Formats: sequence, C-alpha cells, structure tokens
Amino acid sequence: MRNVPVVCLTVVAEAVVESRLLRDLETAGVRGWTLTTGRGRGASQVDASDWEGANVRIDTLLSSAAADRVLAMLAELYFPRFAVVAWVSPAQVVRGDKFT
Amino acid sequence: MRNVPVVCLTVVAEAVVESRLLRDLETAGVRGWTLTTGRGRGASQVDASDWEGANVRIDTLLSSAAADRVLAMLAELYFPRFAVVAWVSPAQVVRGDKFT
Amino acid sequence: MRNVPVVCLTVVAEAVVESRLLRDLETAGVRGWTLTTGRGRGASQVDASDWEGANVRIDTLLSSAAADRVLAMLAELYFPRFAVVAWVSPAQVVRGDKFT
Repeated sequence: MRNVPVVCLTVVAEAVVESRLLRDLETAGVRGWTLTTGRGRGASQVDASDWEGANVRIDTLLSSAAADRVLAMLAELYFPRFAVVAWVSPAQVVRGDKFT
Repeated sequence: MRNVPVVCLTVVAEAVVESRLLRDLETAGVRGWTLTTGRGRGASQVDASDWEGANVRIDTLLSSAAADRVLAMLAELYFPRFAVVAWVSPAQVVRGDKFT
Repeated sequence: MRNVPVVCLTVVAEAVVESRLLRDLETAGVRGWTLTTGRGRGASQVDASDWEGANVRIDTLLSSAAADRVLAMLAELYFPRFAVVAWVSPAQVVRGDKFT
C-alpha cells in the first residue's frame, strides 16, 4: 500500500445551491465527490441573521493546490451570496494517483 | 484568502437525544452546526452491550478552547448516560472570523 | 478529560456493497461505525469510466495500526472490484479506551 497525503475539502451549503455548486466544483477541478443531505444552522455573511435549514455536505479529496483553487472560486462566487462554509482537513489515501 | 486553523468537532449520538443535544451544544457555545442522520454501531458506556441503531452526526467548527468546553459538557452530561462518541480533528477555514 | 490520538477511517462505497462491506469491516476489527447515505461521483478503478450513483459513507475511529489492517483488507478485496475510496485523517477522542 502507498499512503499519500491529500486534503479533504468539505463544503456545507444551503440546499438550494446544490446543482449550481456541483457544476462549479467540477469546473474548478473536482473530479470526485460525496454528497450527503442534512440540516444545519450557521451564521450567514449575507445578512446579520443566522441561517437555519436544509443543507448539503460535499466532501472531496484534492491536492493542496487544487483545494486552494476551489476555495478561491468559493470565496469569489459563493461566500458573498450564499450560506456556504468550507474547510479543509488533512487526510491520507491509499491510492493517491486518482487525486490531482 | 486567509486560512485560519480551527478544530472540527464531530458528535455521533443515538437519535433520541437529538433535540436535547442541539440545545445543550448551543448553550455550550456552538453557533453553527451541520446534522446528518444515519445509523451506527458502537460500544456503549451505559452498559456492557453494544449499541446499534439510528443516530445523528453533528459537525461544528470551533476554536480549540471552545471545543474543550463543549467536550467537557459532553463528558459530564452525555457520556455516562447515552450512546455518544465525540472527536476533534484539525481543520482550516477560509473565513476564520465566524468561529469563536 | 483525556485526549487520545486516533485515526478516523472514512470509507465511501457504492451502495450495493453496504452489507458485505460492514461485515468485512467488522471481521477486520472495526467495532463501532457510523453510516450515512448519499450520492457521489468518482473515478473508478474497475473501468476507465467515471462512476456516479448512490453511495454509503462509513466513518470509524481506530488506532493507526488497526486502520492499516482495515486498509489492507480494502486494498485486497474492494479496490480492484468496486467503486470504493478510503482515507484516514487524524482525530482525538476524549475516551480513548474504546478504540483499539
């Protein structure tokens, strides 16, 4: 086995942006993702009030450089307009050649 | 962009405690969270037997100090009584000013 | 409280292998797990085409050595045949004595 360091990028967003977000993530270089649905509460940057409702959680494994590119896209197109939070965490995969 | 280190606190609990747990988490300082439902199996501390059934998974981003406060609350009120597991993992957010 | 380092092993698999995968994970030493359902897209190693469809996400906390044993099982039995991705990430639990 070969353990390769990658980053796990997690994006939590209000459910209404799901289709648009998946399309933009793939355009930004995301080739594989896992989506689960749930609900959440969070402080929105759109207005001063809290946001609460149905959301989607998308996880994807990326190189650190690719994650930075995706985060830049989210910061430009999503953070100012939608209830979206994104974070990266360190991970190791056994098969690293798939994640670029 | 500004990457800020935070911790991701994940709490997995038997589904029956969902309302109570969310209320207690918010009282302990959790301002934003994502909840997904699923099922699970785990060793319970309540009795010697394994627990298996519907559960909820709650993820929240916090400062390290805030996570410690939440874990102390869970250790006092939940671990002795319910099937609850909690762990923290390192994460980085682009917008750190929301997570205190 | 006592914080103990563990690893979180996450396995994302096409939904059809759920029963078989849970059985094999438990045989390989996994005593507790959380399963959520969703959908995903990913590059398959089975053939050249992308895979997209219903999937399951299984998270489990393990020692680093136990995670290596589970990953070896996945690399032997699952990666060549099914759409399965697995990664490990660092975590800390308050109660470490349950995770061996």
